[in-house]
Amino acid sequence: MAVNLKPPQTLLPVPGVRLGVAEAAIKRAGRKDMLLIELAPGSRVAGVFTRNAFAAAPVQLCRERLASSSAVRALLINAGNANAATGAGGLADARESTAAAAAALGCDAAQVLPFSTGVIGQRLPLQRMLAALPQAVADLRADAWLDAARAIMTTDTVPKGASRRVQTSQGAVTVTGIAKGVGMICPDMATLLSYIATDARLSAEAVQECLRRAAAVSFNCVTVDGDTSTNDSCVLCATAQAGSQDVGPQHPDFGVIVEAVTAVCVELAQAIARDGEGATRFITIEVGGAGNAAEARKVGYSIAHSPLVKTAMFAGDANWGRIIMAVGKAGIEGLDPAGVAVALDDVPLIERGEPHPAYREELGAAVVAKPEFTIRVGLGRGDAQARLWTCDFSYDYVKINAEYRT
Amino acid sequence: MAVNLKPPQTLLPVPGVRLGVAEAAIKRAGRKDMLLIELAPGSRVAGVFTRNAFAAAPVQLCRERLASSSAVRALLINAGNANAATGAGGLADARESTAAAAAALGCDAAQVLPFSTGVIGQRLPLQRMLAALPQAVADLRADAWLDAARAIMTTDTVPKGASRRVQTSQGAVTVTGIAKGVGMICPDMATLLSYIATDARLSAEAVQECLRRAAAVSFNCVTVDGDTSTNDSCVLCATAQAGSQDVGPQHPDFGVIVEAVTAVCVELAQAIARDGEGATRFITIEVGGAGNAAEARKVGYSIAHSPLVKTAMFAGDANWGRIIMAVGKAGIEGLDPAGVAVALDDVPLIERGEPHPAYREELGAAVVAKPEFTIRVGLGRGDAQARLWTCDFSYDYVKINAEYRT
Repeated sequence: MAVNLKPPQTLLPVPGVRLGVAEAAIKRAGRKDMLLIELAPGSRVAGVFTRNAFAAAPVQLCRERLASSSAVRALLINAGNANAATGAGGLADARESTAAAAAALGCDAAQVLPFSTGVIGQRLPLQRMLAALPQAVADLRADAWLDAARAIMTTDTVPKGASRRVQTSQGAVTVTGIAKGVGMICPDMATLLSYIATDARLSAEAVQECLRRAAAVSFNCVTVDGDTSTNDSCVLCATAQAGSQDVGPQHPDFGVIVEAVTAVCVELAQAIARDGEGATRFITIEVGGAGNAAEARKVGYSIAHSPLVKTAMFAGDANWGRIIMAVGKAGIEGLDPAGVAVALDDVPLIERGEPHPAYREELGAAVVAKPEFTIRVGLGRGDAQARLWTCDFSYDYVKINAEYRT
Repeated sequence: MAVNLKPPQTLLPVPGVRLGVAEAAIKRAGRKDMLLIELAPGSRVAGVFTRNAFAAAPVQLCRERLASSSAVRALLINAGNANAATGAGGLADARESTAAAAAALGCDAAQVLPFSTGVIGQRLPLQRMLAALPQAVADLRADAWLDAARAIMTTDTVPKGASRRVQTSQGAVTVTGIAKGVGMICPDMATLLSYIATDARLSAEAVQECLRRAAAVSFNCVTVDGDTSTNDSCVLCATAQAGSQDVGPQHPDFGVIVEAVTAVCVELAQAIARDGEGATRFITIEVGGAGNAAEARKVGYSIAHSPLVKTAMFAGDANWGRIIMAVGKAGIEGLDPAGVAVALDDVPLIERGEPHPAYREELGAAVVAKPEFTIRVGLGRGDAQARLWTCDFSYDYVKINAEYRT
């Protein structure tokens, strides 16, 4: 059950974007499992992708196509099958499905980006996908963001989406994004599957820079289980429908657009941890006083990935000894325990490396009994900090992942 | 339930070693939870310890005392309380308890090494321990290794011990060791709690080198949950009762003694994974074709720590896509998927980065249905290799660790 997460109430249409869904019976029949996103001519697209060495076929093709042009006209996405570890055949499947979408939309195959999520190591049911494509094309609508968010879900229990509307010198700009993914989540300089669109007229350079900045403080700060998917992909589409002047990274409007895109990405990233497989707690981890940002992140992930910390949080047990263990095992050269402080929300547990004299078990227990709270760690070595989001580790995580293919 | 693991049938006494246990009611009453190991004068002792920055008070004291002399006369061990993150008070407790043991045995306090395992962050019940000490002294016996193995258990379900007897130029030499630990297990150049004794007359240099070599291929190759304890300690005691000539690292007998000590350590390390918290599978991970040993270990641990691989193994699901994911996320610079091979025992799954044409689901399922099997990975980059042992991830791991303090 997701932690304090409801389906998005209002997902604003983005001028220049239409979305259509279809039933392709990819893993099983009877659900919308294919999504087509059409972008207006003139759109500029940037993507960040998994660093897993076994990058899936669609990721390989996205990289290839975005390397030669950002003038993308459509995204073709399927759930139920990751098209990963499928060799040359899988790459051919991705080429063929995007070619069919391009033919239906009247653009070049190279202008269509493919995305897949689901089971690794099985070939796509290409014929069923091609057969379902006309249904998706016929369904293209500007107001289908929520349907789109539902179509890309796998073990997600709640569709994930967010919108923002901001004023720029060229008028109002809309940002809407959707995301999926609640297991095999530890994006590494990339992310799960997420599609963010804005009608801002961002230059090709600006769209890439905007996505890099937003992903760094959102998707790259969330982890469910420390496992980095073969298919992580995050795409920002700028349809250039708002205003008449290109916004580059030096343009005065760039900052406000980055801020809006970042806000959407942070909301989506948090939604992923809130809906983490089996999650009963949404946990923010703040690490401060680090020598540098990498060190802060290392300590944060050491806590976020510790099965012992995560099972204690599931039990509502303020077992801070496990937090200390996770800080200590992070591999920070020369870390001095005497400089370390740990708190749960505003309850200090450890100061200068020793139990806080005023700490009593009931104080910590009251914090971790809540569905969401923050683990705060101070390293006492410098000024750098990091903030991560994660969830606990419950019976249901084991159940979901032990039964995933059955 | 431990995987193919029974209590040791025969633990050979080691001349020069006596062991005594006592009830100190450290965590709860009614069990033997304190162990005293007495060593004959002239014994030489070496230890390797956790690299966790929050090393427990007894680990700090062991390091201090071993740095000035290897002439140790006794080990004082308690279960139920780790004496970690207990600050200056915890260090004073460790000094006081070892001083009391030294007084009872007639040696210097600096010749007694303390060890603790259990809950982190609580002070030791020092008075109860001091009161129980005479009981442990009165109980000292040469044939109490199995009782000793039981006394140090925490969430272990089976006591762990092993013995070997080998011939040297100076006559027969005995090696017996015991170990505990089934959770918070990912020793980092050190280990859980393990005590190995031999009557070999090893020089101070040789006892350290022998332990270093044995630990490198045993305790440093086992992981249950990737969490490195604050209390990992492994000690080798050589009582010098066999033969009359010191055995240094160049002595012809050194190799055979290292081999026997290593065999005992490997058996104990495997026992730890077999009894891993909630384990239903004992899994060996062999990584070959690596550019160097560190790379091989990195890939091995990436597989061994993946919650998705571990839950699939629990389900008896040969979900090799998750193994591929774990290989790919290990962060091996320039890893070429086209060079990677994966097999379950002798069933090839992946060759040259693609699914093996002869693979069928039933073949993999038959392997992972067994209580023990090997995941074999070839990286196709060089000649280096690594072998690790781990276990699966079950409902019971969550249960054990969610309920640990209740």
